Amino acid sequence: MGEFDLIRQYFAQATAGVTPKAGDIHLGIGDDCALLSVPAGQKLAVSTDMLIAGKHFFDDVDPAALGHKALAVNLSDLAAMGATPMAFTLAIATPSIDQNFIAGITRGLANLATRANCPLVGGDTTCGPLSLSITVMGLIPDGQAHLRSGAQLFDDVWVSGHLGAAAFAVSQRYAGQALAAEHPARIALDWPQPRLELGLLLRSVASAAIDLSDGLIGDLGHIATASQVGISIDLDTLPIANCLYPLPIETRLGLALGGGDDYELAFCANSSQRALIQQLSTRLKLPLTRIGSVIPHERGIHLQSATIDSQVIKRLTRLRSFDHFADRPSHDSF
Amino acid sequence: MGEFDLIRQYFAQATAGVTPKAGDIHLGIGDDCALLSVPAGQKLAVSTDMLIAGKHFFDDVDPAALGHKALAVNLSDLAAMGATPMAFTLAIATPSIDQNFIAGITRGLANLATRANCPLVGGDTTCGPLSLSITVMGLIPDGQAHLRSGAQLFDDVWVSGHLGAAAFAVSQRYAGQALAAEHPARIALDWPQPRLELGLLLRSVASAAIDLSDGLIGDLGHIATASQVGISIDLDTLPIANCLYPLPIETRLGLALGGGDDYELAFCANSSQRALIQQLSTRLKLPLTRIGSVIPHERGIHLQSATIDSQVIKRLTRLRSFDHFADRPSHDSF
Repeated sequence: MGEFDLIRQYFAQATAGVTPKAGDIHLGIGDDCALLSVPAGQKLAVSTDMLIAGKHFFDDVDPAALGHKALAVNLSDLAAMGATPMAFTLAIATPSIDQNFIAGITRGLANLATRANCPLVGGDTTCGPLSLSITVMGLIPDGQAHLRSGAQLFDDVWVSGHLGAAAFAVSQRYAGQALAAEHPARIALDWPQPRLELGLLLRSVASAAIDLSDGLIGDLGHIATASQVGISIDLDTLPIANCLYPLPIETRLGLALGGGDDYELAFCANSSQRALIQQLSTRLKLPLTRIGSVIPHERGIHLQSATIDSQVIKRLTRLRSFDHFADRPSHDSF
Repeated sequence: MGEFDLIRQYFAQATAGVTPKAGDIHLGIGDDCALLSVPAGQKLAVSTDMLIAGKHFFDDVDPAALGHKALAVNLSDLAAMGATPMAFTLAIATPSIDQNFIAGITRGLANLATRANCPLVGGDTTCGPLSLSITVMGLIPDGQAHLRSGAQLFDDVWVSGHLGAAAFAVSQRYAGQALAAEHPARIALDWPQPRLELGLLLRSVASAAIDLSDGLIGDLGHIATASQVGISIDLDTLPIANCLYPLPIETRLGLALGGGDDYELAFCANSSQRALIQQLSTRLKLPLTRIGSVIPHERGIHLQSATIDSQVIKRLTRLRSFDHFADRPSHDSF
């Protein structure tokens, strides 16, 4: 048995007990293809995201966090659509077979796969520069997906959780002041939580949704473009992560608006849904904050505030999605 | 618009007109997930394969061939199962944005995607060491997939096309005698043809099938293991590629048995199907050669010949799947 066959067995064993809540795995790992059953009346949702060393994580990453995050960012796309996870495939390249490292990745992957009821059904292991590419599949009842194009005029705009912490952890690392692994900002960066339950509960509530991978302005910009509307954001309402409060206000807002890597959901909903959304927040123990509204006439994203200097707002408006691991955008999921 | 957004647009435009013959693309590129329809009575077949520079292709690869091969090796897995292609996702990392290189990859991908009726529905582009990871999805009517585990005692064992040419091209390159791009062995290596039509026509004919990515002995070994049988191969019948005939017989057989990268189909079928399989061969203009049979008692692969020295057979028997780009197996698809 080759060493890469050992890796395969690691992954296969770690997720052997996982079965999906939706759909059915007719044939999993071990043949040319996996075979899955999609029930009548359901659509298959598919998304692919790749994590590469030096681009999306640092070389000294905790392997369990890496395994977790590689699957989490993919599940986050399912959450944004309102899909129930069914299965995933993994293509992994590693420069060497470090058993502890592989075991760590496997543990992180398998723990999240188990919690999400999302088994590994196939993949590919190769010797090469460290990267993980995952394709995740989920199910959505016909007509219930939240598309980016569904935002309606005068909808409220909401966001889950808190923003900016992950980007703060990255910026501290680049400033030579790496935060400890247990700092809340490091936990936000290393262990993002896909908002799967929220995504499901929003099925009949949200008109449009997206997950925040690139930063609030950029990601809401995708909704504005796809829906052919403008979106106004009230900066005074933004749920900025608590651990950022020592920072100057413009820095905080910059991290929350343009930082990326939050993996929270931003969504639009009719104002008649406000009470229901507050109930969801209580039920999920997850903050859901109304941060703005969908507006006519002016396309794009418009920042407003009753308290912040207009010059600051002008500078923040020029923020766009950026990749904090490089000078230029280095990642474009589609 | 970022440079990586340009890549996305390249890929999206190049495959914009492609629609699947089976299933339906409800939502393609441009949202958090693609949404696909799987008709009732069909199973979804899924497979993932990754190509990495220096492992699966040389740095001076023709980008169109690279795009073609990245999709072809994935489609080959669908062919082995007997699935009709529906869609694929692509995660690509490139170290720089060389427009000619990207355009070449796109052309190779899009031409094959068009021929296979298999549109691109999502993916991820990143700056990093060159790699392409594709997940392909196809459809199979319930109960008609050829599994590796389906081989029956006394079945015939067949193989499509000719064997060994791709591995010869690799070995010549390593020997410092790279073949010209138009040499038949280079064409076999750079432009493998997934046997999709054969895969479909074998649905009610084959008891088990696999595509030849790692070499005949290793790949038939997977069928023998999964089906809990032995397989006997008659070396005198092997359809070795014509361009290998100048080589010594043991070298030729070694390339055909252990070389890999052929992407032909090997399959098992009841002897009552012989006439039908010959008709398929004529219809497809594709050689289909009976090379052995499924045997009881002795598990694994057994080589036989009326003409070849028994010491040579012994040495060939010790061949196993190997990766000709490295000293050790560097690739394990599952």
